[in-house]
Amino acid sequence: VDFIAGMNTVCGNGSPLQQSGMAIHIYTATASMRDRVFANGDAEMLILPDLGAIRVFTEFGILQVSPGEFALIPKGIKFRVDLLEGQARGFMAENFGLPYRLPELGLIGAHGLANAGDFQAPVAAYEDQNTPVQLVHKYAGNLWETQLPATPLDVVAWRGNLTPYKYDMYRFEAMGTATWDHPDPSIFCALSSPGDVVAGGNSDLLVIPPRWIVAERSFRPPGFHRNTVAEFAAVLEGFWGPPEGGFGAGSFLLHNNWVSHGPDTKTLELFRQIELTPMKAGGLMFMFESRYPMQVTRYGHEVPGLHPDPAAPWQDFVKKFPGK
Amino acid sequence: VDFIAGMNTVCGNGSPLQQSGMAIHIYTATASMRDRVFANGDAEMLILPDLGAIRVFTEFGILQVSPGEFALIPKGIKFRVDLLEGQARGFMAENFGLPYRLPELGLIGAHGLANAGDFQAPVAAYEDQNTPVQLVHKYAGNLWETQLPATPLDVVAWRGNLTPYKYDMYRFEAMGTATWDHPDPSIFCALSSPGDVVAGGNSDLLVIPPRWIVAERSFRPPGFHRNTVAEFAAVLEGFWGPPEGGFGAGSFLLHNNWVSHGPDTKTLELFRQIELTPMKAGGLMFMFESRYPMQVTRYGHEVPGLHPDPAAPWQDFVKKFPGK
Amino acid sequence: VDFIAGMNTVCGNGSPLQQSGMAIHIYTATASMRDRVFANGDAEMLILPDLGAIRVFTEFGILQVSPGEFALIPKGIKFRVDLLEGQARGFMAENFGLPYRLPELGLIGAHGLANAGDFQAPVAAYEDQNTPVQLVHKYAGNLWETQLPATPLDVVAWRGNLTPYKYDMYRFEAMGTATWDHPDPSIFCALSSPGDVVAGGNSDLLVIPPRWIVAERSFRPPGFHRNTVAEFAAVLEGFWGPPEGGFGAGSFLLHNNWVSHGPDTKTLELFRQIELTPMKAGGLMFMFESRYPMQVTRYGHEVPGLHPDPAAPWQDFVKKFPGK
Amino acid sequence: VDFIAGMNTVCGNGSPLQQSGMAIHIYTATASMRDRVFANGDAEMLILPDLGAIRVFTEFGILQVSPGEFALIPKGIKFRVDLLEGQARGFMAENFGLPYRLPELGLIGAHGLANAGDFQAPVAAYEDQNTPVQLVHKYAGNLWETQLPATPLDVVAWRGNLTPYKYDMYRFEAMGTATWDHPDPSIFCALSSPGDVVAGGNSDLLVIPPRWIVAERSFRPPGFHRNTVAEFAAVLEGFWGPPEGGFGAGSFLLHNNWVSHGPDTKTLELFRQIELTPMKAGGLMFMFESRYPMQVTRYGHEVPGLHPDPAAPWQDFVKKFPGK
Amino acid sequence: VDFIAGMNTVCGNGSPLQQSGMAIHIYTATASMRDRVFANGDAEMLILPDLGAIRVFTEFGILQVSPGEFALIPKGIKFRVDLLEGQARGFMAENFGLPYRLPELGLIGAHGLANAGDFQAPVAAYEDQNTPVQLVHKYAGNLWETQLPATPLDVVAWRGNLTPYKYDMYRFEAMGTATWDHPDPSIFCALSSPGDVVAGGNSDLLVIPPRWIVAERSFRPPGFHRNTVAEFAAVLEGFWGPPEGGFGAGSFLLHNNWVSHGPDTKTLELFRQIELTPMKAGGLMFMFESRYPMQVTRYGHEVPGLHPDPAAPWQDFVKKFPGK
Amino acid sequence: VDFIAGMNTVCGNGSPLQQSGMAIHIYTATASMRDRVFANGDAEMLILPDLGAIRVFTEFGILQVSPGEFALIPKGIKFRVDLLEGQARGFMAENFGLPYRLPELGLIGAHGLANAGDFQAPVAAYEDQNTPVQLVHKYAGNLWETQLPATPLDVVAWRGNLTPYKYDMYRFEAMGTATWDHPDPSIFCALSSPGDVVAGGNSDLLVIPPRWIVAERSFRPPGFHRNTVAEFAAVLEGFWGPPEGGFGAGSFLLHNNWVSHGPDTKTLELFRQIELTPMKAGGLMFMFESRYPMQVTRYGHEVPGLHPDPAAPWQDFVKKFPGK
Repeated sequence: VDFIAGMNTVCGNGSPLQQSGMAIHIYTATASMRDRVFANGDAEMLILPDLGAIRVFTEFGILQVSPGEFALIPKGIKFRVDLLEGQARGFMAENFGLPYRLPELGLIGAHGLANAGDFQAPVAAYEDQNTPVQLVHKYAGNLWETQLPATPLDVVAWRGNLTPYKYDMYRFEAMGTATWDHPDPSIFCALSSPGDVVAGGNSDLLVIPPRWIVAERSFRPPGFHRNTVAEFAAVLEGFWGPPEGGFGAGSFLLHNNWVSHGPDTKTLELFRQIELTPMKAGGLMFMFESRYPMQVTRYGHEVPGLHPDPAAPWQDFVKKFPGK
Repeated sequence: VDFIAGMNTVCGNGSPLQQSGMAIHIYTATASMRDRVFANGDAEMLILPDLGAIRVFTEFGILQVSPGEFALIPKGIKFRVDLLEGQARGFMAENFGLPYRLPELGLIGAHGLANAGDFQAPVAAYEDQNTPVQLVHKYAGNLWETQLPATPLDVVAWRGNLTPYKYDMYRFEAMGTATWDHPDPSIFCALSSPGDVVAGGNSDLLVIPPRWIVAERSFRPPGFHRNTVAEFAAVLEGFWGPPEGGFGAGSFLLHNNWVSHGPDTKTLELFRQIELTPMKAGGLMFMFESRYPMQVTRYGHEVPGLHPDPAAPWQDFVKKFPGK
Repeated sequence: VDFIAGMNTVCGNGSPLQQSGMAIHIYTATASMRDRVFANGDAEMLILPDLGAIRVFTEFGILQVSPGEFALIPKGIKFRVDLLEGQARGFMAENFGLPYRLPELGLIGAHGLANAGDFQAPVAAYEDQNTPVQLVHKYAGNLWETQLPATPLDVVAWRGNLTPYKYDMYRFEAMGTATWDHPDPSIFCALSSPGDVVAGGNSDLLVIPPRWIVAERSFRPPGFHRNTVAEFAAVLEGFWGPPEGGFGAGSFLLHNNWVSHGPDTKTLELFRQIELTPMKAGGLMFMFESRYPMQVTRYGHEVPGLHPDPAAPWQDFVKKFPGK
Repeated sequence: VDFIAGMNTVCGNGSPLQQSGMAIHIYTATASMRDRVFANGDAEMLILPDLGAIRVFTEFGILQVSPGEFALIPKGIKFRVDLLEGQARGFMAENFGLPYRLPELGLIGAHGLANAGDFQAPVAAYEDQNTPVQLVHKYAGNLWETQLPATPLDVVAWRGNLTPYKYDMYRFEAMGTATWDHPDPSIFCALSSPGDVVAGGNSDLLVIPPRWIVAERSFRPPGFHRNTVAEFAAVLEGFWGPPEGGFGAGSFLLHNNWVSHGPDTKTLELFRQIELTPMKAGGLMFMFESRYPMQVTRYGHEVPGLHPDPAAPWQDFVKKFPGK
Repeated sequence: VDFIAGMNTVCGNGSPLQQSGMAIHIYTATASMRDRVFANGDAEMLILPDLGAIRVFTEFGILQVSPGEFALIPKGIKFRVDLLEGQARGFMAENFGLPYRLPELGLIGAHGLANAGDFQAPVAAYEDQNTPVQLVHKYAGNLWETQLPATPLDVVAWRGNLTPYKYDMYRFEAMGTATWDHPDPSIFCALSSPGDVVAGGNSDLLVIPPRWIVAERSFRPPGFHRNTVAEFAAVLEGFWGPPEGGFGAGSFLLHNNWVSHGPDTKTLELFRQIELTPMKAGGLMFMFESRYPMQVTRYGHEVPGLHPDPAAPWQDFVKKFPGK
Repeated sequence: VDFIAGMNTVCGNGSPLQQSGMAIHIYTATASMRDRVFANGDAEMLILPDLGAIRVFTEFGILQVSPGEFALIPKGIKFRVDLLEGQARGFMAENFGLPYRLPELGLIGAHGLANAGDFQAPVAAYEDQNTPVQLVHKYAGNLWETQLPATPLDVVAWRGNLTPYKYDMYRFEAMGTATWDHPDPSIFCALSSPGDVVAGGNSDLLVIPPRWIVAERSFRPPGFHRNTVAEFAAVLEGFWGPPEGGFGAGSFLLHNNWVSHGPDTKTLELFRQIELTPMKAGGLMFMFESRYPMQVTRYGHEVPGLHPDPAAPWQDFVKKFPGK
C-alpha cells in the first residue's frame, strides 16, 4: 500500500469545481510509490506526518518530511512519495480554495508565528530514467490515470515562486497573552486560505507548539464556547486533554460550526483551582478551521479507534447554579 | 498656574493646517482652571498624568483621570481641568491627523490589547452658572480667546459616538511571545492614528504594562536597531532601564527615525548571561510612534533634569569582534 | 402548532453548505413552544410578525416583538418563541450569507434610514428550570433533535456584540427625492448581507414606512422595469397597490430577477393624470432583495389565497404607440 | 477689467505644491479677455456665476455659462472668458487636489443628485487667427506670461474624457428625509475631490436647489452644531436666512472647522412653532466643504459689503435652561 | 434552423443559480428568427461569428455583426437574430458571473488593448408590429416560452449605460515584448468578468489579432506549460498551429486547468532554429480563460470534425536529455 | 572631491519632513570616500552612473555599479562610495515618500518590465578596522556629522528584506504596441513610489532600453502633449533626439507638469514620412515622473552646458492649418 492507495477521506466541504472548501484525509502507507507519480489538479495538498518520515520527490526537487514538519505540494505538480521508515502515517489536507499564504501579521509586527525565513523550498533534482511510469491525476473530483513513457521528474532547474515547501512546526513563534485572559485560536495561525471577511476563512492551518502559559486572573483553558467555523484538531506529538484520558499522536477530533464545546469536567475543576504561575505546555498539535460545515464520510464515522462515548468526559458535570 | 498656562511643548511634527502629525507637551499645574474653558480645533488631545489626579469637566460630562489612566478629548470639545490633588503633572499629546482608533487586532482575534469594553465615556453632566467664562480656542496653530456670558458646559444630555473617554492602562491585555524571539513594539499598540501603509502611522500610542517575559533561546531586550519611525517613550510608574541608573515616573526619551539605539552596556551584559526562566516585568510605560521626524523645541532641548550625558551608559561597550 | 411546527418555506436560493443565499418562510402558530428550544446553525433568522405579538426568549434575554417590529436571532443561538396573543403569523427569513449589518450610508451622512441607536438588544434574563427540554438544531439543511437535562436559557449575564436585537420599523428614517424623479429602492435599505459589488447583495432588507412623496415633473410610481435582483415584497400594515384591489397585511409577492413589472393599468392611468402636490403614503411594507434567482417551493406555488390571475390588473393596458 | 484682472482671492488652504486644498476667489469683470488666454497648471477651476452670463472659449470648444450653472476647466487647459452681458460676477474655486468627480451614490442608487447625463461637454470649436496672444500661466502659485504667435484655441477635434464641462444646478435631483429628522449636508454633494476617509474631503461642492421640506416630528433647520470641516456657503439666486434680514445673490459666508453655528434667534423661534406641513424652499445656494482650515486673505477680511456685526442675529437669544 | 434552435453547448462551468462560471456554445443557423425573440435571464451573451454576418435586433436598436466582430447582449434583454447571408455560424458564450468589463490597463496606460472608444452601442430602433410573437426566456438553467400579443422590440428611445454593444477585433491594440521573452496571455485581455484575486477570473475574453513579433534572445512561441485556468481557444480567421496541419476558421480547442501543453514537435523545431528578425503573425483568434474546470458536454465530445488523434503532432518528440 | 562633496542638487519637490516628494542630484567625484561614511535618514537613494563604475560598500555588503546599472540604498543605511575608475559621474535621486517597489504588472502578467529575479542584493561583507571614521548623516533636510571610533561597516551577516540592491537596465523587458498607436510612458515603469490614485505617483522610475518599434498606421514618436506629472529625463548611453543635434550620455531635461512638449520640427517631419517597417531604437534613457511640480535650484538653472536656446529646434515649425 503506497501513499495514494492508502489514502482515506475523513471529512470535507466545498468542491473543486467551485474552487472552495477543503477535504481532510488520513494516509497509511507501507510502501513507496513505485513507477507511479501523482498530481492533483483540484487542490494544493498539505501533508502532516505523525508517524514515519517520508521523502517527497517533486518536479522541483526533494523534500524529506518527518513528524513535526509539514509539506505543501501546489496544485498540478507531479510528485512521488517514498517511505524512509517501515511505515508512514499522517494527515493530508486538500485545499480547493485560494492557495495557502502566510497571514498578515498586523500588530504582531514584521515577524512572529510562521516566519517566512523558516520555510524551505527544494533544490532542483531530477531522475534520468526511461521506463514507463503511471501518472495518476486528480481532476474535477475524479482520479484519472495514464502511462508516461518516462519519468516526468526530469526537471533540471527551475525559477519562480510557486514551489513545494516544507516547514518545521517546532520553529513556530507562538504568541500568547503576557498579562491575562485567553486569546482567540487565530493567534496560532500558520497558513491561511482566505475566505470572506466576517465569516471565517476557507481553510486556516493553526499550529500549537510547546509554549509558556502565564495568564493571571484568568481561567486558562478555553471556556465553553461555540465557533462560527468548523474545527478539526489533531495531535502530532505528546498528549492532548486531561492529565489522564488524553489523546496521543495521531488522534483527531472534529467540532463542526456552532457546536458547543469546552473543557471536560476534570480539566474544568483542575483549572478552577490551579495556582496561576507560569507553566510550560508541551506536545504539538495542529488545527484546521474552515467556515463551511464539514461533512463526514463513512470512513470518518467508522474510523478504527473511534471514541466509544465522546460525551463521557463531561458526564460528571455539576450544575453550578446559582453561584457555586 | 492652571492646565493651560502650565503647558510646555517638547517636540512635534506635521501641522494642524495639513491635518497630519502630532505634538507632545508636558503640563505642570498647581491650580484648577477658574472661569475658563479650553477647546482645541487643531487636534484631539490625549492626556496622560504621571502625578496628581485631575477632573476633566467636558461638554459630555466628567472624567476623573489618575496616573495610570489616560483621557482623550476630541477636536473642538470644550472642557476645563480641575486639580484633585495639590499639583498635577503629565503628558499631553495633540494628534493633528485622523482620530485615534482601536487598531485592527488581526490574528490577535476578537479581543486583546486595549479592549473596547474597557474604555469609559462620561455620563452627561452640566453646570447651571451664568457668570462670564473665558474661552481659549486653539485653531490653526494659534490660541484665540473670547468671553462667553455663561458656562458652555451646560449640556444636559447627549447621543452619538464622538465622545471624550478614559482608559485604565493596567487593563491593557498585553501579548508577547510564548516561545522565543522579541516581538516588534507594535504588539503594544493601544490606539492608532493611521498614516501610510508602509512608512508607519501618523501617531500610535503604545502601552507597556506589567507583564510576563518568557522567551527562550533569545536575547530578551530589544537588540540594537534603527526604526523607520520616531519614538517618544515615557515612564508613568516604576523604573525603566538598567537595575541601577534607570529612570523614574515622569522621565521621557526621544529616539528620532533611524537613530541607532539598544540596550546600554550593563543591560546587554546582564541579559547575555541571565537564565531564561519566566520573569515578571513591572512598571508602566507608554510610547508614541510617529512616521514623521520629531522637531524638538527650545523647551525640549533645555528641559529641567535633562540627562547630562545620554551616551554615557554605552561608553563601556567592548567591541566583540571577531566572535567574543 | 408552535413557531417551529408552523413554519412553511415559500422560496429560497443558495445553500447553507456554501453560506450564501437565503430562504423565506411563513410561520403560523397557535401555541407557545413548550419544553423545546431551537437553534439555527445554518442561518441568522429575521422574524417579521404581521399578526400577533410574540415573546422570544433567547440565551441573551427576552425580545417582545409586535407587528411593525422585526427581530433578528444570530446563527447558533438557542431560543424559544412564546405567543402573547391567541395566534401569531408572520415572515421568517434565513440568511445563509454574511450577517446582516447596517449598510454604509455614504452621502446620506452620519444618520438616516435605520439608525443604530434604534436597535434594541435584550437585557440578560434566565430560567432556573431543571426539567428536560428538547433542542431542535438546524444544521447543514437538516433538523436534528436531542434532549437536554435542563433549559439552556440559563445565561445570567453576557458581554459582546453578537446579540439578538429588535427594531421598530416605524422609526425608519426614509429618504426620498425632494425635487423630482423616482429613486431606486436601495434608498429603503435597512439591513444588508453583502454580496458582490455589481450584481446585488446576498440579501438586503428594505423597509417602506409611511412617508411623504413630493416629486414634481415625474411619474411617481416605479415605471415598468426589470431588476438585476429578485424581489420579495410583503405588506405588514395597510394596503399595497391600487386604491381598489390592493393587498392587505400578510400579502406578499415575488418578482424574480429580470422579470418585467410595473404599475397596473389603473395605477398607471391614475398617476399619469394626478396633480403633483405632496402626498402622504401610508402603510408598512418590507422587501427582500437577493441577487440569486429565487426557487419557489411547492408550498409557495400552492399557498392558500394565491392570486387566481396575477396578470389580470394589467389586462386593460392600451398600447400607446405611437405617441398617445 | 477682464476675468483674470478682476479676480480677488477670499480664502484658501493647502498648496498647489503639495496638490492638496483649494482656494476661493471672486471675479468681477467688465470686459472680455482680449488677445489673452489663461491656463492653470495648479488647479482645476470651478466657475459659478451669480451675475452675467459668460462664454468660455476653451481648447475643447465653447461653454456658455449663466447664473444657475457652473463650469469646470481642467488643469492645464487654455481658455478665454468673454462677457455676454455688460458685467460678470461670480465665484471661482481652484481645486489643488484630486479632480472633482461625481461622488459614489451608494444607497441613493443608480441616479440622483448630480446625474452624469446632465453634464455637458463642449463640441469642438476653433479659431483660425494669426495675431499674437498673451498666455498667462498659473504654476506653482505664480502667474507667468509669454507671447504666442497665434491663438492656441485652434483644436479642430478631440477625443478623450478630460474635458471642460458645465452643469445646470436646477437639474440637481436633491434628496431629503421623507419622514423625520434633518439629514447631513453631504446629501447635497454634487462633486467631490476626495481626501481622507474620516476627516472630510479635500473639497466638496454641495448644491442646494429649490426643494420640498416635509420632515415631521423634527426641528427642520440645522440645529446648533460644529463641523469637522470648513464650510463656505454662497447664494446664487433668491435669499438665504430669515424672512427678513437674509442675504441675496452674491452673498457668502464662511464657517471654519469646529466653529459653532446654527439658526439665528428669529429662525429658531419661527421653526419651534411652525406647523410641520410640506413647504417648498426656494433659491439656489452652493457650499464648499473642505477638511483643512480656511485662511482668509486681506481681501476676504475687507471685502466690500462685509457684514458689520455678524453675531447680531443671535443677540436676542434667550437662555432656555432649565426646560423652557 | 434559427439562432436559438441551432445552438449546441460545448462546455461550461459554474451555474446561473450561483451566478458564477460560464458556458460555451456553437450556433449554426440557416434562417432568421421569425416571430420569436429571446432573452437570457441567466447570463450576458457574447456572440462571435466565424461565418456569415448577422443582424441582432435588440430592445436598444440594431447591431450588424460580421466575422471579426463580436456582440454582447446584457442579461435580460430581448432580441432577435436575423441572417444577412445564407448561413451563420459562430461561438456564443454565456457569462453567469459579473458582467464583462474593460480590464484595468494598469501600466499599459490610458489606452491600449480594447479601447473604450471602439465599442459601438446601437442607435435606438423599433418595430411597430402587432402580430403575436413567441418569447423564449432562459432562466435558472431552463428555457421558458410564452406568447406576447405584439413585438417587444418597440422601444423608441433609451438612456443609460447597460446596453448591447459590438466591437471590431481588428481594432484591438495588442501589446507585446519590444525586447525579449514571451509575455503571459493576459496581455491580450479584451474583456474581463472578474473572479478572485489569485486564482484567475470568472471569464476573460482574449483577442489575438494580426501583430508583430520581435522578441530577441527568446523562444518565441509559448513553451510547455500548465495554466491555473481553463483555456478555450478558437480561430476566427486564418490558421493556427504549424505551417502545415494547422486549423482554420471555426476550429477550437480546450486546455483544461493544469493540463500540460505547448508547441507541437514541428513548431518546436522550427522556432529553435528560426532567425529572430521581426515577423508578422496573421489571422484572428480568441480565447476564453476561466478559473473553473470546464465540463464537456456529449456534444462537445462528439462534435463533427473532432480531431481523431489530438496528441499526434507531439508524437515525434525526441527527448533532449541531457543537453541536446 | 568624493561622492558626497561632489553632489549638486538640480531640482526637487515635497519635503523629508512630510515624507513626500523627491530630489534629483548630479554627482561628479574624483576620489573615493576616505574615512567617512554616509547615511540618509530622509530618503532612500537611487544612484544611476553615466560615467565611471563605482563600488558601494554598505552595511549589507558591496555593490559594484557601472553605467547601465542603478543601485538603491534604503533610508538610514550607512555606506561608502569608492571609485573604480579615475572619475565618476551620474544621477542620484532621493525619494522622500514610500519606498520604491516593483509596480503591479496587471495584465502584463507574471513577468515583464523589471523582473524581480534580476535585482541583485549584496552578499554580506565587512571591514575590521579600528581607526576613526566620520559619519555624515542627512536628517530633516540637514547634514550632521560625528566621529565614530571605528568603521560601522562591520556587519558579518544579515537577514531580512530591506536591503540595498542593484539592477542592470539592459535586462529590462520593455513592452510596446505590437499593432498600432503609441503607448503611454507608464509602460516603461521599473520602480514606483506610489502616491494618489489619479494624480500620478510620488516618484516613478522609467527605463527606456534598446527596443523594437513596430507600430503601423501610427505617428511613432509621442505627439505634442501635456502631462499631469513632471518628467525628468536623462540619457545614460547613446543619443536622444533627432539624428543630428541630439543629446549624449549625461544629458538631461525637465518637463514640468502641464508644459506642452513633443517632437522637434525635424523629428516631426521625419516621422510623418517614414515608412513604418520595424525599426530598432538604441541607447539607454531613464525618466523620473513625479506628481508634484519640480522646483529648480540655482545650480539647475546654471548647470554647465545648459542649452543656450532650448526652444530652437521647434522654431521652423510650419503651421499646418487648415489641413496641410
